Amino acid sequence: MGEFDAGRLRRYASLSREAAREGIINLNPIQRGGILPEEARRALVEFGDGYSMCDFCLKGRIDMIDRPPVRRFLEDLAAFLGMDVVRLTNRCRDALLATLMGLKRARGGSALVVDANAHYSTYLAAELAGLEVVEVPHTGHPEFRVLLEAYREAIEAAEERTGQPPVAALLTHADPYYGNLNDARRVAEICHEASVPFVLNAAYTAGVMPVDGRELGVDVLVSSGHKSWASSGPVGILALTDEVAEHVLARSERFPNKELYLLGCPVLGAALATLMASFSHVVERVKRWPEEVEKARWLVEQLERIEGVRQLGVRPKDHTLICFETPGFHEVARRHKRRGFFLYEELKKHSIVGIQPGLTKRIKLSTYGLTREELERVARAFHEIAAKYGLEVR
Amino acid sequence: MGEFDAGRLRRYASLSREAAREGIINLNPIQRGGILPEEARRALVEFGDGYSMCDFCLKGRIDMIDRPPVRRFLEDLAAFLGMDVVRLTNRCRDALLATLMGLKRARGGSALVVDANAHYSTYLAAELAGLEVVEVPHTGHPEFRVLLEAYREAIEAAEERTGQPPVAALLTHADPYYGNLNDARRVAEICHEASVPFVLNAAYTAGVMPVDGRELGVDVLVSSGHKSWASSGPVGILALTDEVAEHVLARSERFPNKELYLLGCPVLGAALATLMASFSHVVERVKRWPEEVEKARWLVEQLERIEGVRQLGVRPKDHTLICFETPGFHEVARRHKRRGFFLYEELKKHSIVGIQPGLTKRIKLSTYGLTREELERVARAFHEIAAKYGLEVR
Repeated sequence: MGEFDAGRLRRYASLSREAAREGIINLNPIQRGGILPEEARRALVEFGDGYSMCDFCLKGRIDMIDRPPVRRFLEDLAAFLGMDVVRLTNRCRDALLATLMGLKRARGGSALVVDANAHYSTYLAAELAGLEVVEVPHTGHPEFRVLLEAYREAIEAAEERTGQPPVAALLTHADPYYGNLNDARRVAEICHEASVPFVLNAAYTAGVMPVDGRELGVDVLVSSGHKSWASSGPVGILALTDEVAEHVLARSERFPNKELYLLGCPVLGAALATLMASFSHVVERVKRWPEEVEKARWLVEQLERIEGVRQLGVRPKDHTLICFETPGFHEVARRHKRRGFFLYEELKKHSIVGIQPGLTKRIKLSTYGLTREELERVARAFHEIAAKYGLEVR
Repeated sequence: MGEFDAGRLRRYASLSREAAREGIINLNPIQRGGILPEEARRALVEFGDGYSMCDFCLKGRIDMIDRPPVRRFLEDLAAFLGMDVVRLTNRCRDALLATLMGLKRARGGSALVVDANAHYSTYLAAELAGLEVVEVPHTGHPEFRVLLEAYREAIEAAEERTGQPPVAALLTHADPYYGNLNDARRVAEICHEASVPFVLNAAYTAGVMPVDGRELGVDVLVSSGHKSWASSGPVGILALTDEVAEHVLARSERFPNKELYLLGCPVLGAALATLMASFSHVVERVKRWPEEVEKARWLVEQLERIEGVRQLGVRPKDHTLICFETPGFHEVARRHKRRGFFLYEELKKHSIVGIQPGLTKRIKLSTYGLTREELERVARAFHEIAAKYGLEVR
């Protein structure tokens, strides 16, 4: 426990965030659905201390707290998602891990079927739960469309390989790479025919667009509060049917009041307070999803005016997360002294951030929640940067 | 996804917190070490959006981010704790679970030795990791002192029962029930003689008092940012020796950049920003621990002036978490129309919160960080309530 450089300690105590400055546009797909509205910023300050939601906890369970109305809120959240029961975790992946561990113990099995566009954390959760992953393929470049009908074969393959039906089949509702939105209902049908629980990873959909688990035939829906629910987070959402809840919310042997796979309560002060504060905002904003998709399509059109730029993934866009291949920018990067960072830095001059620093071969962004004016600024910035480096803009 | 009661949605959007009001004294032991200093409140607002620390992430690993200086901060944090490596998780228990899973795979074994005052989450983590718990007993009422020498027998018993050495032995540095502070060094010696990794649960010690893992002989130290580091959290601290880190920070097979037992990055915007912002405050405050202990002893003396009140746990106090048995208040509760809630409500009239609502047989509180004036207000409030209900105050 030596002494520390005082200057460094002062620096830790006074960090500022460039991307939070007035007028900055942040295009980062993991961030656009998490930006706090004004009412959540107030809740953040009011409930800033770590255990701030636990002042009047009578039962040792955050989901049973009535003051503030956490219990009621979770019921509303379940209703909003068309599911029976909701619990909170600290991350979407923790909700998934709890699901896999609970279903594995209840049903047996040692495989998980996933789409080939699943997030890395899906693979990690499977690995940690001791499950082999069987992939449902996609069509590859340029669409990367998941072959939903292949869920049937994948379930059969899992059974052949491991001698038991898979513990579950998971679909990434909108994937993090191309923003392809998948027809969950079709996969649900296949899973139910095979009596395999259907898990929907709605990290990029629930909270930004309408998602009704009952209508889609979902058994477990997991989502991410800081990604798509305008919560400060970290907070994961675990929404279950009653049937599956029995297994996933199994109690500890020694502490029967505690849910084993959740390791007891998540700790949620500001994270939960902001999730609750933003709920009315979320309930309203999902109704505007068609406009959001329109804006995404508009930006695709604008960026594809640049030489070589092409939107990857399914066309036309039906989600706001967009991946572009940008070979022109990549060519510029090869001869630029800042290499791949040039694009990030050029965009920053236009007060635009959120493109992965250093990458130019493909870029990813989200238009979610941007105003028309902001979108126009983004398009203009890309056009000007392209022109500056000699790329043609049609 | 039906319609929601507009009044309820408005209520979620405008929650206020009684315990946050100016002049309120909060005695809750889980909260006293988590109260944010001014610089952390600023960080909370600046980094309120969920992924706010990830704006300039180049390697897909939060512990490697240099802007803001997360990597450097984690090195400083490790140095402060006298450990080699620090990673963050979302809760202390998640740090413990990662430890148990990592060590179990690396060393084999199916038991965990723990002290009988361990937090419930220790038992849950063991259960989830598939480990049988072997307990080191305490002396029972009124001291509840853990019999440290019995770690040797417990390790032997674990080996006899399971045929293998235990995966690890854990000591709760200061326990959550009586606030007994244990001599970690003694347990470390026993563990090292038996070649069993020694895990210290420092949730109630590191961050409020000086804790040097190297000096104590600790292999793994886990702690809680929202409990004892003045962080908004949720954030757990996982501090390791290099030797143990190799196992606990094992990589995913499929994603070798990601640490399997952590399930990849924790998501830490405001949680990490406030942990960093509060670090200089924490580095300073641990030096004042002897004064904190003095204040705890003073309050014990004052409350024991009330008929029947007795401090449980080791005497004199060497920690600020205090448990009292309060048979006089319990007797009052039996005939009071508000039953056990009377004490909570009477204290609230004195602007004091944080005693578990409904409980009067035993109460738990912490004096950590209270000023002399606040302590006097607390003592006076208890005395006045006692007198009001006919209990003698000597």
